[in-house]
Amino acid sequence: MTSSNLFQKILSKQSFLCIGLDSDPEKIPDHLKSTDDPVFDFNRQVIDATHNYAVAYKSNIAFYESQGIAGWISLQKTLEYIRSVDKDLFVIADAKRGDIGNTSRMYAKTFFETMPFDAVTVAPYMGIDSVEPFLQYKDKWVILLALTSNKGAEDFQFLKDENQGDRLFERVLAKGKEWGSKDQMMFVAGATRAEMLRDIRKIIPDHFMLVPGVGAQGGSLKEVAHFGMNDQCGLLVNSSRGIIFADNGKNFARVASEKAKELKEEMKMYLEERGIL
Amino acid sequence: MTSSNLFQKILSKQSFLCIGLDSDPEKIPDHLKSTDDPVFDFNRQVIDATHNYAVAYKSNIAFYESQGIAGWISLQKTLEYIRSVDKDLFVIADAKRGDIGNTSRMYAKTFFETMPFDAVTVAPYMGIDSVEPFLQYKDKWVILLALTSNKGAEDFQFLKDENQGDRLFERVLAKGKEWGSKDQMMFVAGATRAEMLRDIRKIIPDHFMLVPGVGAQGGSLKEVAHFGMNDQCGLLVNSSRGIIFADNGKNFARVASEKAKELKEEMKMYLEERGIL
Repeated sequence: MTSSNLFQKILSKQSFLCIGLDSDPEKIPDHLKSTDDPVFDFNRQVIDATHNYAVAYKSNIAFYESQGIAGWISLQKTLEYIRSVDKDLFVIADAKRGDIGNTSRMYAKTFFETMPFDAVTVAPYMGIDSVEPFLQYKDKWVILLALTSNKGAEDFQFLKDENQGDRLFERVLAKGKEWGSKDQMMFVAGATRAEMLRDIRKIIPDHFMLVPGVGAQGGSLKEVAHFGMNDQCGLLVNSSRGIIFADNGKNFARVASEKAKELKEEMKMYLEERGIL
Repeated sequence: MTSSNLFQKILSKQSFLCIGLDSDPEKIPDHLKSTDDPVFDFNRQVIDATHNYAVAYKSNIAFYESQGIAGWISLQKTLEYIRSVDKDLFVIADAKRGDIGNTSRMYAKTFFETMPFDAVTVAPYMGIDSVEPFLQYKDKWVILLALTSNKGAEDFQFLKDENQGDRLFERVLAKGKEWGSKDQMMFVAGATRAEMLRDIRKIIPDHFMLVPGVGAQGGSLKEVAHFGMNDQCGLLVNSSRGIIFADNGKNFARVASEKAKELKEEMKMYLEERGIL
């Protein structure tokens, strides 16, 4: 999928919503907990209820691998189910992998072959040879961590280079842009620092950003759209807990649908204000 | 296991060798490829042949997860087998995980509960809340990436802060030392930059370092011992391909044993020179 394909998808759905399947087995509704595969059954109902409002799903791999083999089975079934519902949905493995070249090749194989996701999140610390193996796959995406939404982002990401005057997250953006075109490289930029998206846009005018932190983490969708949108939208905004765990009873899927629809309607408004729709 | 326990293990084994089980299914000997679980059968024979010379094993998770569910089964069986051979071996999940707090908690669960490793490698980019959940587990270890052995280490790890004058990897060492005591926190420092271990030792005089890059990546064990060792050894030096794939025929286990023994004998010499043995 190219960035142009992704933009077309955003136009047709009138949404740039990514739904995070952080499907914690302890948080799913009680009435599902006794099925053969509670996590998959939960995901399936969330996907059925929300896919009309979303262009992307993001599986948070930690929540699956913590369940051992059963978790990996739930993850595979979820990926297959998303494809069966709408083969054009953009599906992200939120895995934050990255290692020396021969190891990153294996991680790329995991998420692009063994489980054919469209994109994988990658941690930049180890530099170019930890990222390149993922970029060898045509039509697949790296989503590189740049400025994250959490408190710990302040520990290292703002370190400012004495020679060039740029900060670590800015260096990651600048290097990442060299490593991967706008059709293969996307960047994580947190909604909790929305005003900084304006500066980030100057460094990467054309690349997509994946923006987590709206909802449970407190980020504002309005500000994200205001500071981060470009002429081809250029944004995927993720909400996880704010949708999938908005209700934890028998009505969870209906409430998830309502929450996703609300976000989609708000996104549609920002796309119209920008003149994109 | 405390750092003191680990030091005792080093004294009794006269070795600070960690053997990396980067068990690429394509590289294991042909005669094993038709068994029910070639990767486990390979690992089992490597472990049998080498455990007298090693204090630690490091499973490179990428090589297992790239095989999907079969890979996770091989990994679990390998961990159980190491424990059955010698319950005091230090077993590392080389996973390079790290995410916001609620997600890191899930990664910690994966590698400390679902699969009870002793330690997990963690990428520092997202800061303190990506590391703390792992430190909640008593007697378990975080091995934080500081200065890695690969070419891409130069992309970001040497960025030098204009205010404090420290470089990114030095900041990681200084912060990491605050976050975790020498009984829970260890640092990755690559053998390919052995002369830098001297400076690293000044920042973390008492913490263990896990040193990859000896062997296939070109690092020198002699230099690592010279620049990195402290009075309690303070080193785990890893070799992966240089041992497990030293021979790819029917004699692979015997050759792996010889290579591990050579490294152990060299390590013993450096421990003696330092007056530790």
